[in-house]
Amino acid sequence: MAPTFTLGIDYGTNSVRALVVRTSDGAEFGSAVANYPSGRQGVLLDPKDHNVARQHPGDYLVGLEQSVRGALAAAKKKRGFAATQVVGIGVDSTGSSPMPVDAQNRPLALDKKWKKNLHAQCWLWKDHTSVREAARITTAAAEHRPHYIAKCGNTYSSEWFWAKIWHCLNVAPAVFDAAYSWVELADWIPSVLAGADMPAKVMRGVCCAGHKALYSDEWGGLPDKDFLALLDPKLAELRDRLYEKAHDATVPAGKLSAAWAKKLGLPAGIPIGIGEMDVHYGAIGCGVAEGVLVKVIGTSTCDCAVVSADKTVQDIPGICGIVKGSILPGYYGIEAGQSAVGDIFKWWVEGVCGGDGAAHGALTKAAAKQKPGQAGLLALDWNNGNRTILVDQQLTGLLLGQTLYTTSAEIYRALIEATAFGARAILERIQNYGVPVNRIVCAGGIAEKNPMLMQIYADITGCTMQVSGSSQACALGSAVAAAVLAGAHKSYPAAQKAMTSVKAKGYRPITANRKVYDQLYGLYRRVHDAFGGLNQNADLSRVMKELLEVKRRVASIQ
Amino acid sequence: MAPTFTLGIDYGTNSVRALVVRTSDGAEFGSAVANYPSGRQGVLLDPKDHNVARQHPGDYLVGLEQSVRGALAAAKKKRGFAATQVVGIGVDSTGSSPMPVDAQNRPLALDKKWKKNLHAQCWLWKDHTSVREAARITTAAAEHRPHYIAKCGNTYSSEWFWAKIWHCLNVAPAVFDAAYSWVELADWIPSVLAGADMPAKVMRGVCCAGHKALYSDEWGGLPDKDFLALLDPKLAELRDRLYEKAHDATVPAGKLSAAWAKKLGLPAGIPIGIGEMDVHYGAIGCGVAEGVLVKVIGTSTCDCAVVSADKTVQDIPGICGIVKGSILPGYYGIEAGQSAVGDIFKWWVEGVCGGDGAAHGALTKAAAKQKPGQAGLLALDWNNGNRTILVDQQLTGLLLGQTLYTTSAEIYRALIEATAFGARAILERIQNYGVPVNRIVCAGGIAEKNPMLMQIYADITGCTMQVSGSSQACALGSAVAAAVLAGAHKSYPAAQKAMTSVKAKGYRPITANRKVYDQLYGLYRRVHDAFGGLNQNADLSRVMKELLEVKRRVASIQ
Repeated sequence: MAPTFTLGIDYGTNSVRALVVRTSDGAEFGSAVANYPSGRQGVLLDPKDHNVARQHPGDYLVGLEQSVRGALAAAKKKRGFAATQVVGIGVDSTGSSPMPVDAQNRPLALDKKWKKNLHAQCWLWKDHTSVREAARITTAAAEHRPHYIAKCGNTYSSEWFWAKIWHCLNVAPAVFDAAYSWVELADWIPSVLAGADMPAKVMRGVCCAGHKALYSDEWGGLPDKDFLALLDPKLAELRDRLYEKAHDATVPAGKLSAAWAKKLGLPAGIPIGIGEMDVHYGAIGCGVAEGVLVKVIGTSTCDCAVVSADKTVQDIPGICGIVKGSILPGYYGIEAGQSAVGDIFKWWVEGVCGGDGAAHGALTKAAAKQKPGQAGLLALDWNNGNRTILVDQQLTGLLLGQTLYTTSAEIYRALIEATAFGARAILERIQNYGVPVNRIVCAGGIAEKNPMLMQIYADITGCTMQVSGSSQACALGSAVAAAVLAGAHKSYPAAQKAMTSVKAKGYRPITANRKVYDQLYGLYRRVHDAFGGLNQNADLSRVMKELLEVKRRVASIQ
Repeated sequence: MAPTFTLGIDYGTNSVRALVVRTSDGAEFGSAVANYPSGRQGVLLDPKDHNVARQHPGDYLVGLEQSVRGALAAAKKKRGFAATQVVGIGVDSTGSSPMPVDAQNRPLALDKKWKKNLHAQCWLWKDHTSVREAARITTAAAEHRPHYIAKCGNTYSSEWFWAKIWHCLNVAPAVFDAAYSWVELADWIPSVLAGADMPAKVMRGVCCAGHKALYSDEWGGLPDKDFLALLDPKLAELRDRLYEKAHDATVPAGKLSAAWAKKLGLPAGIPIGIGEMDVHYGAIGCGVAEGVLVKVIGTSTCDCAVVSADKTVQDIPGICGIVKGSILPGYYGIEAGQSAVGDIFKWWVEGVCGGDGAAHGALTKAAAKQKPGQAGLLALDWNNGNRTILVDQQLTGLLLGQTLYTTSAEIYRALIEATAFGARAILERIQNYGVPVNRIVCAGGIAEKNPMLMQIYADITGCTMQVSGSSQACALGSAVAAAVLAGAHKSYPAAQKAMTSVKAKGYRPITANRKVYDQLYGLYRRVHDAFGGLNQNADLSRVMKELLEVKRRVASIQ
């Protein structure tokens, strides 16, 4: 029998990647990346407000065709592949990245009228304009529907679905009124491939719905209309035009339409997987299972774990989501994360020190020569807020311990250590609430390319760090989902066993380093807890917020 | 009558400057700077311990001849000057900068045997090796002689005389044993010019003695032998070979010896002023009087104020010294300071960002465009510890508020603001304890060259900042002292009125900026007090110290 292949399509922050995978063994036959043409590295910014991060939906379509055609062309160069052997497509994307669409499921931003309006674009995951709305949702839920937010750390984030849509309603009511519905990018791409010509036909994944939109089968789907009306009556009206049911990855999003089959050069009618967020499918691509924590380390870091749906998972304070079926069908998906990791290193090296890409290498080399504790520095990893365990976008970075002799490389290492301390805080939190972690598998460019960082993570967490066998774990996970859907494997475990792997080299904790880092982690937690508001005695929990208030006030006077 | 001139000689951290001044009006006829030839910019470092900062005494002698001859040569180019018209010499230097000398008042370091021994050199003011000894002196004094440290903020500093000498005894007993006595640089140079051939002939200034060596006429001079024996019996023995009496600036240190008169090309027998520390004579050069605070802003900042000796000055916690006659005869001299100011900016621009001298200009330009509060940053000015009001060398820098968009120029400005907040903390402290401040006069290169910094200081302190009319205020102050001593003026006020001035342009606080900075100062104090240990509730006062302990431990394992 001829081998079969699936296609994984991964929408990242700056580009989209397509990957052709053999279903029998996960061999990667071809891949291609398309950068989004608009904005700064694909992101539409507002020079007056650095919280704005939007994306032009047209870029997704251009990138779709370009990346898929590129991946197929690359695969065709290998023996044993033909496009007719592709039996399914899986899609993942950043999230929560919702966009307003019209009654034909067409993004408003593709309409000439709205093309240049930032609010009519896709609201990228890292858009932080909706802080006030998120805080109000948190307050309203705490008072009226505490169960809504109990599974997301008791805090609704400014990065999420309802906060963004409500902010749009507040600052750009004309855009809100022109939108028939709002669709997450992860759901929209599969719906486009399946030819869905109205929002009601868009199959919604429980991944985005559950983690970002307060969806749960327990309370009948999205938040009820009475609750939404408390926020704004228009949000209650919108609910009717969203969706009643969201699905896990056992359900297809549809079949490839003839039009898109032709555009891409693929067989029409092959199944399209339900959309999940990138790291969720990435976790599958890394072999996630009960006891395995997957860390996708990139500009930010996402942590994924699963616990059998037969068990009871208690609410975990400060963990941004526990959603049944959001990663693997039949399991609770647990998502945590750090709002900035690679972005912090990039900020330091390129933004502050004015270095180029090569400067990272030089600083890494210098930092690798330092011993733990040698520089006397301590940093918090909050330059982009804290997603887990404080769930507070209004926190900012901190560095202390600098003398007149502190070097750039020492600060670079301190920032890496800070992200590892943040990783340990997450690990301890989920373990303390009964989520088993026996192994950690990492994916992402940083995990592959920076052995110093991986060793620091091992030393600080006290866990062996393994690295995913694939450099394209998210796309691979999407391809795994497509393979299961297409019947190439009987189950997710079987598909993961056949199609995913970890690299032979792992990073084990070094005892002497652990000892120093245990002490430094204690100091990190003291500062973390004081500025993060966990220590009620400290006079410092409002310092960062007041600085941001001053900043906003000063900016508004200008 | 032909005009008379005096010579002010100012020993700084990296160089020595000589200045020829006309006594009638303070006109500067010629000056010259000689850089110290040894070490890194004149400072002998230990690559293994960044706390070490020593200086080779031979550099002082080379620099003395070079700078004085240079200044005289420059003055001779002007009409109306001849070296025969020089009627006196004043000397100031950094301090506490003590050096071990033999029975002939010759520095051990000039002996071949000790030449290369770091401990036999002059222990520069900013040497921070003696932290443990300083802490023990503080503890012993608190228990047995609380009055000894009541006038220096209840804390003896690692930068000071006894801590350094005791540290030498502990780490280099052979050097200690070889030393007959120890002399402050400010006292040693006048003694050399006067031809003092034994330590007993060295006239000691009350400035160094009172501020750095726990000297007071109230308790009969230096600390008593019983107390010193509590520290180490050898220190008690040393007391006999130090001095019984220290003097204010009404007393000459001696007369210019024939040998040095010949070397320098000056009249033999002219009076040499008693040595004071640079900023103390600098304060005189800036016109210090009751109600005038003088700030000498350089690599570090020193604050000087005076209160009539007829009044009672209460002890001021955290202020490093209140000494009768240490600045102006007939007045209490009050000294406070910040351990690093220009050094912090230099660290940031050159040490971290890798810029050269010109980079300061570019960053200043960018920082000048920012409004107060706009960057959302807050820093502590502790990269070199905190001299006033915490008197703690074991504190380190802190920066918070950084996002992924924070720029190098924003951090540069935040560091400038941090030093201004530190300046305000000092100002408030002395005012709260009854020291009147009606005007602030600044001196030093930074005050002259950086209007942005001066405006920030005005906005943050709420005081108009004036700038000294002379760029060489310390040397000018030494020349004023020499002029009084030589009888060119009847009194210090008369000499100051004739010979010193302030620039026409002052910096007035801008109301809108003050408002923002008042709020930011509140935040600064919250962080300052928590990490500085003033807020007993905070869990953070030991964080920086524990980091330094780890750093030392790690370094000791290497």
